[in-house]
Amino acid sequence: MTKLPTIVTLDDVRQVLSDLPGPDVEAARTAQAREPQLTKPAGSLGRLEQLAAWTATWQGRYPPRMKTPNAHVFAGNHGIVKQGVSAFPSEVTKQMVANFEHGGAAINQICKSVGVGLCVERMDLDNPTQDFTENPAMSETECVEAMAFGMNVVAAESDVVCLGEMGIGNTTSAAAICLALYGGSALSWAGPGTGLDKPGIGKKAEVIGIGVNTYKPYMQDGLDVLRCLGGRELAAIAGAVIGARLKQVPVMLDGYVSTAAAAVLPSINKRALDHCKVGHVSQEPGHKVLLEKLGKVALLDQDMRLGEGTGAVLAVSLLKAAVACHNDMATFAEAGVSGKEG
Amino acid sequence: MTKLPTIVTLDDVRQVLSDLPGPDVEAARTAQAREPQLTKPAGSLGRLEQLAAWTATWQGRYPPRMKTPNAHVFAGNHGIVKQGVSAFPSEVTKQMVANFEHGGAAINQICKSVGVGLCVERMDLDNPTQDFTENPAMSETECVEAMAFGMNVVAAESDVVCLGEMGIGNTTSAAAICLALYGGSALSWAGPGTGLDKPGIGKKAEVIGIGVNTYKPYMQDGLDVLRCLGGRELAAIAGAVIGARLKQVPVMLDGYVSTAAAAVLPSINKRALDHCKVGHVSQEPGHKVLLEKLGKVALLDQDMRLGEGTGAVLAVSLLKAAVACHNDMATFAEAGVSGKEG
Repeated sequence: MTKLPTIVTLDDVRQVLSDLPGPDVEAARTAQAREPQLTKPAGSLGRLEQLAAWTATWQGRYPPRMKTPNAHVFAGNHGIVKQGVSAFPSEVTKQMVANFEHGGAAINQICKSVGVGLCVERMDLDNPTQDFTENPAMSETECVEAMAFGMNVVAAESDVVCLGEMGIGNTTSAAAICLALYGGSALSWAGPGTGLDKPGIGKKAEVIGIGVNTYKPYMQDGLDVLRCLGGRELAAIAGAVIGARLKQVPVMLDGYVSTAAAAVLPSINKRALDHCKVGHVSQEPGHKVLLEKLGKVALLDQDMRLGEGTGAVLAVSLLKAAVACHNDMATFAEAGVSGKEG
Repeated sequence: MTKLPTIVTLDDVRQVLSDLPGPDVEAARTAQAREPQLTKPAGSLGRLEQLAAWTATWQGRYPPRMKTPNAHVFAGNHGIVKQGVSAFPSEVTKQMVANFEHGGAAINQICKSVGVGLCVERMDLDNPTQDFTENPAMSETECVEAMAFGMNVVAAESDVVCLGEMGIGNTTSAAAICLALYGGSALSWAGPGTGLDKPGIGKKAEVIGIGVNTYKPYMQDGLDVLRCLGGRELAAIAGAVIGARLKQVPVMLDGYVSTAAAAVLPSINKRALDHCKVGHVSQEPGHKVLLEKLGKVALLDQDMRLGEGTGAVLAVSLLKAAVACHNDMATFAEAGVSGKEG
């Protein structure tokens, strides 16, 4: 079992981030050596070939395995909601968590359909974060505790971990994080979320701008940004990304909020997200821009914008197919199939 | 059980095509009425919402069902191969069919992974079609027999049917069909197939141009094109598209060859492919252009170009998730979740 470091302060997290394990080069090489032997024209499975090699590389294991994919949906509440930045009221966070627990939400059906285990994580729902137009969203302790929770909750037995979220108000938090990390106009990062109209999006952009300007002097890196503008479910996702790396579990990120939470890490270690893929590109307009900033290509584009981990879990169907092809296809020699001519 | 028409001549096929059943408007309406009641922001499942409604519409059934998806891989051999248009020798068609039957190919692993039944259909492999630079690829009887085979082989119990193919030389056939149907330059429709180099692609374009010019006076519609330039597996796919429509089975097309085979039908009835989705966009460059001509948007883009039905079957994972969400999610009322404010 992997012994995880204890984190108490954000500096502890910085320490862990500065010393993350790298890729398993040997597993990658073994995967690349097998691929051309399989009964198909070279490269014809496209991204599936890369996904199989990537899985082996970050599982640190050959052959790769995709028998136990898991999803965690972290739920949190946000003080910023009182600024009128969401189309739905705050109590919906708890109601949707109950819906997850009773099996009635989209994520339940998609997990069942794709064959992915689902864990729902309540992040102190009765204590919303602070309204970041007034105070930093979280104290250092609150932020680190949520990160530690996420770091520890990833099971080392997971063959991949999908990181999703639920939290009324959290696209505002995600947009504020992106603005703080990358600059640009507040409007370019603010989207409709659960269904804001145009004036609502304007209001949201304004709120984001206030937040980022207020804490600018105090935000030296992504972890400060996470503390000042994030939320417990975002901190948990950032922690889970770190925990997964330490436990050799590849990560599937979901949409805008999930990716924004992870995006706070590369400012400390630019290789921090090498073990992460992004399951889909959300219709929330900031997500596409964020992916470009991170140099990530989403696996799916289905015009979705629900969160809950739905896009990440859907993309596990590609991972399963990729690993199945890589591991179980016959080679040219085994099948007696003639090779390329000339 | 659906009684299928008997087809003996291409005119019989034209007759069937002119009188295809339309969509089930009532099923579509019922699906659209349920969607806004489900516990998610309106529209947030994007394309999955449309896929659920589309499935109900063309299954002619509400609720839609996705318990028994099936794939057919039609295999054929092509006389045109002797012109040197493929990177692999003709005998690979049979060898790969044996590989399918022994469970060693990519399509076997992907079917198992996604949960799709697989049927492999040998289309007279010992009798390649004619080299279409010399003679029409098929006689009318050969073409209609292959179409009838495809029409009959689709099981009415299938909740969706994926149509794939295997046939050394068949991207040449697909490219010739596209050139005949849509014009443009031969080079714009000719791609590397299983792995041609640039001079090889030039040669392929030349062969295509000869074929299309030779039969231009004899090709009045898509069915003539299919007979002169196609192959038995392409004719079977075109027939299966018709059979599926008659049996209320939605169709998932695969890549370039599968889509080109289906593309011969709209010249007789422009609604002929309304019950078809395209599983993925192939890396074979002509496929993207063909999709634009047909007004179809592929569900996946994974840089694949293998054929065998692999992209179609992979996309069934989206259909399964879509139908599961539509049928099994809780409504706002059932889950006690508050609606949108204001």
